Amino acid sequence: MEASGTDERVVRVGLLGAGTVGSGVWRILHEHADSIATRTGARIEVTRVAVRDRSRPRDVAIPDHVLGDDAMAVVEADDVDLVVEVMGGREPAGALIRRALELRKPVVTANKELIAHEGPALTAMARAAGVDLAFEAAVAGGIPIIRPLRASLAGDRVTRVVGILNGTTNYILTRMTEAGEDFADVLADAQAAGYAEADPSADVDGHDAAAKTAILATLAFDVAVHADDVYREGIRGVSAADLRVAQRLGYVIKLIGVANVVDGRVGVRVHPAMLPADHPLASVRGVFNAVYVEADATGPLMFYGKGAGAMPTGAAVVGDVIDAARGLVHTTTRPSDVHVGPADLRPIEELRTQYCVRLEVDDRPGVLAEVARSFGAHDVSIAQVWQDGVADGAELVLVTHRSREADLRATVDALERVDSVRRVAGVIRVESEAFSA
Amino acid sequence: MEASGTDERVVRVGLLGAGTVGSGVWRILHEHADSIATRTGARIEVTRVAVRDRSRPRDVAIPDHVLGDDAMAVVEADDVDLVVEVMGGREPAGALIRRALELRKPVVTANKELIAHEGPALTAMARAAGVDLAFEAAVAGGIPIIRPLRASLAGDRVTRVVGILNGTTNYILTRMTEAGEDFADVLADAQAAGYAEADPSADVDGHDAAAKTAILATLAFDVAVHADDVYREGIRGVSAADLRVAQRLGYVIKLIGVANVVDGRVGVRVHPAMLPADHPLASVRGVFNAVYVEADATGPLMFYGKGAGAMPTGAAVVGDVIDAARGLVHTTTRPSDVHVGPADLRPIEELRTQYCVRLEVDDRPGVLAEVARSFGAHDVSIAQVWQDGVADGAELVLVTHRSREADLRATVDALERVDSVRRVAGVIRVESEAFSA
Repeated sequence: MEASGTDERVVRVGLLGAGTVGSGVWRILHEHADSIATRTGARIEVTRVAVRDRSRPRDVAIPDHVLGDDAMAVVEADDVDLVVEVMGGREPAGALIRRALELRKPVVTANKELIAHEGPALTAMARAAGVDLAFEAAVAGGIPIIRPLRASLAGDRVTRVVGILNGTTNYILTRMTEAGEDFADVLADAQAAGYAEADPSADVDGHDAAAKTAILATLAFDVAVHADDVYREGIRGVSAADLRVAQRLGYVIKLIGVANVVDGRVGVRVHPAMLPADHPLASVRGVFNAVYVEADATGPLMFYGKGAGAMPTGAAVVGDVIDAARGLVHTTTRPSDVHVGPADLRPIEELRTQYCVRLEVDDRPGVLAEVARSFGAHDVSIAQVWQDGVADGAELVLVTHRSREADLRATVDALERVDSVRRVAGVIRVESEAFSA
Repeated sequence: MEASGTDERVVRVGLLGAGTVGSGVWRILHEHADSIATRTGARIEVTRVAVRDRSRPRDVAIPDHVLGDDAMAVVEADDVDLVVEVMGGREPAGALIRRALELRKPVVTANKELIAHEGPALTAMARAAGVDLAFEAAVAGGIPIIRPLRASLAGDRVTRVVGILNGTTNYILTRMTEAGEDFADVLADAQAAGYAEADPSADVDGHDAAAKTAILATLAFDVAVHADDVYREGIRGVSAADLRVAQRLGYVIKLIGVANVVDGRVGVRVHPAMLPADHPLASVRGVFNAVYVEADATGPLMFYGKGAGAMPTGAAVVGDVIDAARGLVHTTTRPSDVHVGPADLRPIEELRTQYCVRLEVDDRPGVLAEVARSFGAHDVSIAQVWQDGVADGAELVLVTHRSREADLRATVDALERVDSVRRVAGVIRVESEAFSA
């Protein structure tokens, strides 16, 4: 940090990456420079920007003398007080951030993948160095969720976090629900419109939501949860028939990431689930994200907004930059004193929730009894059942009472061996108002 | 702050008030003492509690030697590092807080009334003293909204805040909507159940929501808005017929507090409004609160949760206490550098929004033409109209296009002089998806 000619302090930022989010950060820092200076007590100036390809056209006009292609040089430069990492991916981002922290430079990152795998280690490094490591933008883009979890709820005990954390899948499920379209058609449209990647696996198979769920679990429970610890199912298996059944039961289907604590053990999972239509999360439509938090004293909270995009994510990064810059100006940080311990994980098999099972069966007497016997034999009791004729057979839909996942899986295995069951067409977890444990 | 025998630092709190919120604060600080110590880097100890009547029975067991009835003595005590004010009301709370700030003791308060009237002056005092003045609990109880507005959105430009800020009125409107009951019946029930005060005016006439709206406007726009600056209508005039009409049009009626900026001027208002049924605020039911924020870069955000109650509000206070205590432990604060200027207020007459006007009229030819002429004569154009027979007359419902409030009021005055109009039975503002300006 240096004093400018007019005695105004300046915090000099090194920006690593100038893609979508980086462009947003650049734009916001410039468009709102005056109000940011007021709020920070210092001007924030981007002195260096590292990009992979200097000649590539960008959304924002970054002067040539600021651009460079050596990211490590930016981190180490004397005229960089604070490092903003928006290049993404685990390496070289990880090495760059570690170096910045070694140099006691505060770091702001939007890197969900890196934080989901190395967050606790990097946070410990930052604490040891006495500088900020902030990553509000890594989860749910523009929605302030990290700061509320860390600061506002610091005096409370969080018991559960349920998030709609991926805009692409929520857009697809919303279109499937509201327009009655098929997964493949909506995905193709979303790809054409730029809402979904050419390779959609990170979104539709739940990898993105799993990384965010891991970060939320770590923050909520002070234990180290990695992206790979998260049980994960995507939305490829959700059919129009599932959505129809959900609607009939008064539910909507959402891809949710859940982190909760049961008997001291942390369960983390991402999968499609039926949510009651009057639950606050059920009204989250299209590309919007939301995070629902339950805490002992505070009760339920929900945070809703845009989970992606240059400007929302850029604004979240800039919020962190201002906070870190104020720490520099006041020559202080308030590093978190939270020590993140190892996580005792609860396997998915121990989950207790309700399930909606959709079967295609022969349309003849005795089928229901056979099916019911399979449930009963595995301690899964049935709460609701109905049967419709379809083509030459019948569709049988059963909703269970709260049951153990392991028992439900054994039931499904058994059903697949029942002669009159042609196909187990769908199994979806049902999260009732009180959610499952 | 002092070092304890075990070299663990201790932050000593003086608690002013031990009513509903104070009891919640006491309980949370004690039940979560260990995790709070970890997060703070210091133990937080309540060394003194000031109450009006020491003999009054309380929800929590506060040891006798801690209790006192001299609040100023608590503020000034050498063994108090940090003051928590949860007594409410403007005085003596204001004098106590000013004295604490003079002594450079950080202050946490839940006092909406005081902050709505003197927030900017007190914040300036705190900044001059270099200590924290935090009031997360003063708006929307347990919902983290102050911190996100101040910190997370510091790099963005907030353009509008719309809140459901009063749980009592939201409970009443929800019951009226869902059970079809009348205002007076629901209010009586709510009073019996303890959801509403014996004198319900602060809630049902919108005073409480107006104070919170003033605080939100001040934080969102960095201008001094006082509770008395807020245009205010309560819910006493909302009838079952209004709710029925709203439902038919695809809206729900909520008491909202709105703060927005138009051409550099700040509009602040509290009134019942029709919101589209698929708007995120529409799904906020019962005693829950929510704050919807629109910002340039971030887009729309919503924060949802419990707006009142000992534990949610207590948790919000404790979150602030932890933050302020960390400031003490790290012998630093990060005071806001925001300078709050005077507000240029936009009078309600300049509001431009849609209106739903419900008229009881004679059921004879020519009435619609007479009514339509009154609208047209005042530049208010009609978007939608329908007529139903009621008893021996008819009910005429008109929804306008976006119009100036002043023109609408002139229209209503004119309608009241039209012979065939028996009564202007209801006028409710309609906030469309894009909200009004």
